[in-house]
Amino acid sequence: MGKGGEGGGDGGKSEENMAAWLVSVNTLKIQPFQLPPLGPHDVRVRMKAVGICGSDVHYLKTMRCAHFVVKEPMVIGHECAGVIEEVGSEVKSLVVGDRVALEPGISCWRCNYCKGGRYNLCPDMKFFATPPVHGSLANQVVHPADLCFKLPDNVSLEEGAMCEPLSVGIHACRRANVGPETNVLIMGAGPIGLVTMLAARAFGAPRIIIVDVDGYRLSVAKSLGADDFVKVSTNSQDVDEDVVQIQKAMGSDIDVSFDCAGFSKTMSTALNATRPGGKVCLVGMGHNEMTVPLTPAAAREVDIVGIFRYKDTWPLCIEFLRSGKIDVKPLITHRFKFSQEEVVEAFEVSARGGDAIKVMFNL
Amino acid sequence: MGKGGEGGGDGGKSEENMAAWLVSVNTLKIQPFQLPPLGPHDVRVRMKAVGICGSDVHYLKTMRCAHFVVKEPMVIGHECAGVIEEVGSEVKSLVVGDRVALEPGISCWRCNYCKGGRYNLCPDMKFFATPPVHGSLANQVVHPADLCFKLPDNVSLEEGAMCEPLSVGIHACRRANVGPETNVLIMGAGPIGLVTMLAARAFGAPRIIIVDVDGYRLSVAKSLGADDFVKVSTNSQDVDEDVVQIQKAMGSDIDVSFDCAGFSKTMSTALNATRPGGKVCLVGMGHNEMTVPLTPAAAREVDIVGIFRYKDTWPLCIEFLRSGKIDVKPLITHRFKFSQEEVVEAFEVSARGGDAIKVMFNL
Amino acid sequence: MGKGGEGGGDGGKSEENMAAWLVSVNTLKIQPFQLPPLGPHDVRVRMKAVGICGSDVHYLKTMRCAHFVVKEPMVIGHECAGVIEEVGSEVKSLVVGDRVALEPGISCWRCNYCKGGRYNLCPDMKFFATPPVHGSLANQVVHPADLCFKLPDNVSLEEGAMCEPLSVGIHACRRANVGPETNVLIMGAGPIGLVTMLAARAFGAPRIIIVDVDGYRLSVAKSLGADDFVKVSTNSQDVDEDVVQIQKAMGSDIDVSFDCAGFSKTMSTALNATRPGGKVCLVGMGHNEMTVPLTPAAAREVDIVGIFRYKDTWPLCIEFLRSGKIDVKPLITHRFKFSQEEVVEAFEVSARGGDAIKVMFNL
Amino acid sequence: MGKGGEGGGDGGKSEENMAAWLVSVNTLKIQPFQLPPLGPHDVRVRMKAVGICGSDVHYLKTMRCAHFVVKEPMVIGHECAGVIEEVGSEVKSLVVGDRVALEPGISCWRCNYCKGGRYNLCPDMKFFATPPVHGSLANQVVHPADLCFKLPDNVSLEEGAMCEPLSVGIHACRRANVGPETNVLIMGAGPIGLVTMLAARAFGAPRIIIVDVDGYRLSVAKSLGADDFVKVSTNSQDVDEDVVQIQKAMGSDIDVSFDCAGFSKTMSTALNATRPGGKVCLVGMGHNEMTVPLTPAAAREVDIVGIFRYKDTWPLCIEFLRSGKIDVKPLITHRFKFSQEEVVEAFEVSARGGDAIKVMFNL
Repeated sequence: MGKGGEGGGDGGKSEENMAAWLVSVNTLKIQPFQLPPLGPHDVRVRMKAVGICGSDVHYLKTMRCAHFVVKEPMVIGHECAGVIEEVGSEVKSLVVGDRVALEPGISCWRCNYCKGGRYNLCPDMKFFATPPVHGSLANQVVHPADLCFKLPDNVSLEEGAMCEPLSVGIHACRRANVGPETNVLIMGAGPIGLVTMLAARAFGAPRIIIVDVDGYRLSVAKSLGADDFVKVSTNSQDVDEDVVQIQKAMGSDIDVSFDCAGFSKTMSTALNATRPGGKVCLVGMGHNEMTVPLTPAAAREVDIVGIFRYKDTWPLCIEFLRSGKIDVKPLITHRFKFSQEEVVEAFEVSARGGDAIKVMFNL
Repeated sequence: MGKGGEGGGDGGKSEENMAAWLVSVNTLKIQPFQLPPLGPHDVRVRMKAVGICGSDVHYLKTMRCAHFVVKEPMVIGHECAGVIEEVGSEVKSLVVGDRVALEPGISCWRCNYCKGGRYNLCPDMKFFATPPVHGSLANQVVHPADLCFKLPDNVSLEEGAMCEPLSVGIHACRRANVGPETNVLIMGAGPIGLVTMLAARAFGAPRIIIVDVDGYRLSVAKSLGADDFVKVSTNSQDVDEDVVQIQKAMGSDIDVSFDCAGFSKTMSTALNATRPGGKVCLVGMGHNEMTVPLTPAAAREVDIVGIFRYKDTWPLCIEFLRSGKIDVKPLITHRFKFSQEEVVEAFEVSARGGDAIKVMFNL
Repeated sequence: MGKGGEGGGDGGKSEENMAAWLVSVNTLKIQPFQLPPLGPHDVRVRMKAVGICGSDVHYLKTMRCAHFVVKEPMVIGHECAGVIEEVGSEVKSLVVGDRVALEPGISCWRCNYCKGGRYNLCPDMKFFATPPVHGSLANQVVHPADLCFKLPDNVSLEEGAMCEPLSVGIHACRRANVGPETNVLIMGAGPIGLVTMLAARAFGAPRIIIVDVDGYRLSVAKSLGADDFVKVSTNSQDVDEDVVQIQKAMGSDIDVSFDCAGFSKTMSTALNATRPGGKVCLVGMGHNEMTVPLTPAAAREVDIVGIFRYKDTWPLCIEFLRSGKIDVKPLITHRFKFSQEEVVEAFEVSARGGDAIKVMFNL
Repeated sequence: MGKGGEGGGDGGKSEENMAAWLVSVNTLKIQPFQLPPLGPHDVRVRMKAVGICGSDVHYLKTMRCAHFVVKEPMVIGHECAGVIEEVGSEVKSLVVGDRVALEPGISCWRCNYCKGGRYNLCPDMKFFATPPVHGSLANQVVHPADLCFKLPDNVSLEEGAMCEPLSVGIHACRRANVGPETNVLIMGAGPIGLVTMLAARAFGAPRIIIVDVDGYRLSVAKSLGADDFVKVSTNSQDVDEDVVQIQKAMGSDIDVSFDCAGFSKTMSTALNATRPGGKVCLVGMGHNEMTVPLTPAAAREVDIVGIFRYKDTWPLCIEFLRSGKIDVKPLITHRFKFSQEEVVEAFEVSARGGDAIKVMFNL
């Protein structure tokens, strides 16, 4: 890498910075990426670990995700950690050499959402790899220092990159108010279901039941800490029967359900299985429109809360990793280098799913 | 009536107590109704004003409502106020002659819901005119003293009876956390939409827009205090266009929407019209199953809360009536006496709808 | 029922029920205690484990505690667990032979506090061993079934009796909103400080610092799970210096402080040590009046919350004991039998303090 | 002033900007004040109305306030409103000519407090006239656009300047959670007591009792909307008697008390008068240390909350002024021009108190 004693004079700036660009459908290319100037509150970070998210794959396959459309080539990637190489003139919280995990979104701090403590809803958010903002699958990025969180010695850079997906689970648990009295149902044992499960456990949930259509995923979930699981079909006629099985597996009231799939059937099951006064948190984004028994749920005061990304989650993620309350290492199933060939392969592996939970680049 | 001075000697007990019995579909009969013994914490109340609720009509037409089924003849009615005629040995809060409004539900106080402050969710609730519990359209009822709330001099018995429907609006506003910073959208200008509107205003909502398909209802809503209204169709293709009209009528963010109709279209409109981080409260119970854009709402953190009846609302209702912050008198559009003939007619008027908002019996 | 050996044939009813009566200052006598009749929702419990609380000792020494005065002989004791011997006609949740922990307070369920979910503030509470209500240091007691909580197989009756002191810690943590992001300071390492520490840990507090004047107590606290401790003096001149030591021991912001002593110095230290926007929970009841820097605390928005007993805590206590998140066994340092001699001795040991944390009777 | 056609070419910049400088104890001088450069998100505002706050007077008398010390000459003033004269390149929310009220504090948006929605606790806050930051008693100031709130046509610039003191009352009511069920006690009828009273009424408080030692102040409070008042002495022996009088004047439970004086006696009275489970909000900053009955309050779960300035209050203030729910005009008792002579006189009038509630400069 030629950082030469941390200072071939230019701190690595003369080296050409390369990044993975999404240039068109199914086409990723490693190409030069010019860094923006370093502002007084910014740091320059050498990327060391970058994970692939479902949304990255979605952009690659379709050049879009939700209502965001990639119109110009864009650097991809947003789950990341690295090492500080340069700090802006006003940065006091970090020094060169610090290992950090990066929170990907820069909000405006001028709107009502930012001022009111819900900055994740900021309409002017600039977020890694959400067009037209470039992402972080690159040798280096420039980022605000306050969005770079120092990792303790016992937390690796790969674990640092996992703070991003884990943050989704943390934010979901916070919104649903999970604690030591909350029995939790999780619909869907994909990556998001798994991080939500780990987060719920760390928040103290005494009993967690997880549900999926795939036996392999369920066995992984069990090995990662689910108390029990229920294998279901995709047949929407089975909701009532599934609810019976799920409630039996729980053995007591279900206080909070997370729908980490996001389909009419999973949501209907979650709504019907949850106790009066409980909560259903919709995390997965399967279908936009759903046909669900909303009125009976409302009449039992089962509330529905959704999530958009996360806010203020990195310190807690890092604390959970430091203390061992959460172990994300088993989620990292595949590792690749940052080369043209491996980038392409890595995205294929991630897209294929199967036994791949989290695919990670080591830069 | 024979209350000694008002009649004689036995405090009205020898007089035969008559009540309106739902005996079969579309058949109401005024028949004798034997009062239960007066417990030490009970009072005996002479009913003076009883309103007809939509659920009463529903029971009359179908012998059922939601999952409750009338299997044996049942006294109907639950919106009521009257005068104390006898108090139990332990009752200290009330004396004979007090004018009171009655909260209709007796909860168990032994379950988690009761102990946790959400007694409206008590699974063992005994509720006026919810089978197999008898209602209160009767000359006299026996009821726990702590569910009878003394009316101030400037609040009439009819207004007292209106505490029940008003409580639905109060509970909805509480669950949606309406306050002086909450711009409110109300879908549906029926009786429940109107009480919710009045409650939202009393909770301080600075701007309220109401939506309906019926121009007459909207004009009533306007006269009762809506800032503006939008007339819509029932065509589900028009959701996007309706949202534009509604947001234009509001002129600023919609913080909380109440769906007081409860159909796929009204709920979809409410979900799409509400700002990120806002709330939609489902009050009306039109259809059990709805097809709605749940995922985009969740991804904007628009929460959905439902309500089941109410809890702890009578004191606040009475305070709102006393202070004049809410005037329910214009909602009482029709009045009937408690005779076989008039009871039948009153229910017909109520069922017909049209210009009938609240139909009230004066006993 | 054949309880044989515990007394035959009549389920123990013919056997004379004996209890520990507080008859005058420093005088406890084991005398017959007639059980009240068993109501339909009551159970009769054979006491098996009863702990001594600081308030019991206070009553014994002074015949009073706070504003409660013992005017007539009163059965003492309120930390207890036992075995169901008889159930009332309406009891469905429990059967004879169930091992249960008893919540000691019976509230009225008619006042605003009861209805609003804060039944611990009920002005008509009837509470074991709070005059004029008798306590539970007796062979048998009659108690409402909904206040008797079944113990899992792996939780002993002694642990069940510990639910009562533990509930104080649980309620304190709930009121201060302790969770996985809450660094906790505890002032005072007596029994209440210890249960609060155990509860805070179970609620997920990542770091707990405990403070006392007694080195032995601090070493016990450390062995029970405190991350670190600070030994302080009783000299009120040392507050500033103590705060420096405490903040250094914490190594990061103190989010919540529990004052489990309740003196001007401990409260001043807690107020000054807690970060802006944090909370101080006053648990201990040392002095009624305190001289404290209230204004600077208020100007940093450090809130002060207090506790009165607890509410809705038994299920969570039992879950914490079942799961092993809390181990109360090391707190039980002394055990006595239920005889005249040992009762007197047990109270002496408890009053003496020293290495006695919890003194327990095995009946 | 020569704004001629809104632009003698330099938009008023060539005109010398004058400001009121606090140069030493009791010495204010109108001197030139050079404006900072206009950033892309800033606006330049011509000041039109600036009020005098108690803290301004305190700085003038002592060169300090709380722990802030004036070490170099500082422009004073922070309650202000004016007209936009220039907008930065990125400003979209405001245009030249807009009438605006200014929120005086610029927070860092990088710390945990800013990110968590409590930006008023930001340790790096830059606040008008809090050393070493200059204030706003000047012809013109440069300020971030997002801290300048457009006034509706029916709200005057003087009323706009009153948003600052009113914000203290709003923030206090929010922290104490005042609503339509909250009976409010206010200790102290000075300017802060009055704005808190007005805010509590606007939040829906049904009944407000105000307490002071000064009969004139109480009569003003009554004329501004207090339901009743109690005149008390400063004798700390009278707390119990005062509590009796106050509770009698309220006629029902006191849910929330605001101590707008901040002395041992006022706080003791507030703590003892408030119902179990209620709240006391400490707003006034009389004495740092207080001797108060903290333990009995804690044992009734009477919580104590404090306030530091405010956050997110301007939009609500403006809405309350626009709708007429709050009328601040009667609080403006004295008006002065922005000349050396009148500035000195205005501060003398403000310092003297008496019938001066709010002293306002018209620039």
